[in-house]
Amino acid sequence: MHKLTHFRLCPFSRSIRLAVQELGLACELVEEPFWEWRQPFLALNPAGEVPVLELEDGPVLCGAYAISEYLGEMATGDEGGRRGMLLFPGRAAERAEVRRLVDWFQRKLDREVTRELLVEKVYARLQHSPAASPNSDTLRAVRANLRYHMGYIGYLAHERRWLAGEEISFADFAAAAQLSTIDYVGEVPWEEFPVAKSWYARIKSRPGFRGLLADRIPGAPPPPHYDDLDF
Amino acid sequence: MHKLTHFRLCPFSRSIRLAVQELGLACELVEEPFWEWRQPFLALNPAGEVPVLELEDGPVLCGAYAISEYLGEMATGDEGGRRGMLLFPGRAAERAEVRRLVDWFQRKLDREVTRELLVEKVYARLQHSPAASPNSDTLRAVRANLRYHMGYIGYLAHERRWLAGEEISFADFAAAAQLSTIDYVGEVPWEEFPVAKSWYARIKSRPGFRGLLADRIPGAPPPPHYDDLDF
Repeated sequence: MHKLTHFRLCPFSRSIRLAVQELGLACELVEEPFWEWRQPFLALNPAGEVPVLELEDGPVLCGAYAISEYLGEMATGDEGGRRGMLLFPGRAAERAEVRRLVDWFQRKLDREVTRELLVEKVYARLQHSPAASPNSDTLRAVRANLRYHMGYIGYLAHERRWLAGEEISFADFAAAAQLSTIDYVGEVPWEEFPVAKSWYARIKSRPGFRGLLADRIPGAPPPPHYDDLDF
Repeated sequence: MHKLTHFRLCPFSRSIRLAVQELGLACELVEEPFWEWRQPFLALNPAGEVPVLELEDGPVLCGAYAISEYLGEMATGDEGGRRGMLLFPGRAAERAEVRRLVDWFQRKLDREVTRELLVEKVYARLQHSPAASPNSDTLRAVRANLRYHMGYIGYLAHERRWLAGEEISFADFAAAAQLSTIDYVGEVPWEEFPVAKSWYARIKSRPGFRGLLADRIPGAPPPPHYDDLDF
C-alpha cells in the first residue's frame, strides 16, 4: 500500500490527503512530528517537511508540489488512466489558472494567515514552548489578512462553480485544506462570507473530507461547528 | 512580443528570466515596484506579486509556479516542440525530483534566507523605510541558515552533473536565481563551498545569465565579484 507521512493539522498534508482520497488511492497514514527533526524522517525527506508520499513500487515524493504534480501527471501516464485530470483539469491555460490559485493558497494564504496561527496556537503547545500564549498583535494582523483572503475566495466562488473554473481542481483542495486548519483553531468568520461558506460546505461534504474532520489535537478541541456539515 | 513583468532582484522573477532565455523566448521586460500595490498591476495579478508573463496571443500567467509549469508543458503541446523539456526533463519520477528541489529553493531557501535579506538590505531602502539599518540578529540567523543550504547545494552538485540529475532543469534556474540575489547583497560565502561555487560558475557563464549580472540597485552596488565569471 502507498504510505503518506503527514501531520494532522498541516495544510499541505491536508491538501494531499484530500487529493489521494478523491483519486481513490488507498494510503496508509503515518503521522510525523516533523519539528523534532528525527533522523529517520530526515533520511526520507532532507527538507524535514511533510507531506511525503511513498508510492508502492514507485518513487518517494516530497512536498505537496511534487506530489500533486506527480498525481496530476498520472492523467497522461500508464498508472491511473485519466483520473489525474481531477487535479489539473482542462487545457494549458486552465491548468495555469489552477496553479495560480494553488500558489495563492499554499504560499500567500499560508504565509499571511495559516502558518502564523499554527505557530501561535498549535505548535507552541505541541513543542511545550514557554511562550504558549498567542501574541495579540500577531492575531490581529492575521485576522485582517484572513478577511482579505475570505473576500477573494467568495469572489471566486461567486464567479465560478469551483474556485479555478467549472471543474473541481487541486486549487479547491489546497484552499479547503488551508481553511480547514484555520477553522480547527476557530478563526474563520464564516457568517461574514456566505458565498465562501457555501463553497466550503460543498467541499466539506465530500467523502474525502471525513478524515480531516475527525482529527483532534489533545487539549485543543476544535469549535463545535468544525465537523458539522450543516454549520 | 511576450511581456514579462518582474522586479530586478526578485528571485522568482529571476528564475523565470533564466527560463525564458534558455527557451529562446523573446520577452519585453517591464519592471514593477510591486510593493506600491498599483491598481493597474493588481488588475493584472490580484496577488500583487511578480513575475507575471503575458504571452502574445496567449494567457496571462501569474507567479513562477504557473509560468514554469506552463512553459514546461510546451514540451508536449503545439507551441514549442520539445524545448519545454528543458525545464522538467525526464520521466515522472525525475520530474518529481526537479519539483522537490524547486520547492526547496523557492520556498525553504527563500523563506529562511533570501526574503529576509531582501527585506533587511533592499526593500527597506527602496521603500524609504525609517528602519533602514539591517537587524544584526536577523542577519546572524540568516547566515547560519545559508551555510546549511550551501552545504546541501554542494552535496547535490557533488553527486550529480546538475542539481536534480544529469540534465539541467528548472531546479538549477530556481537555485541560481536565489543565489544570484543573495550574491548581489554580498552574503554568499563562496570560498567555504567550492563544489557549490563550481556549479554556480557553470550556470553563471550561460548566456541567459547576462541580464541578471547587469542589474543594479541605485546606491547599493553588488560586490566586485558579482558579475565576474571567473570569481
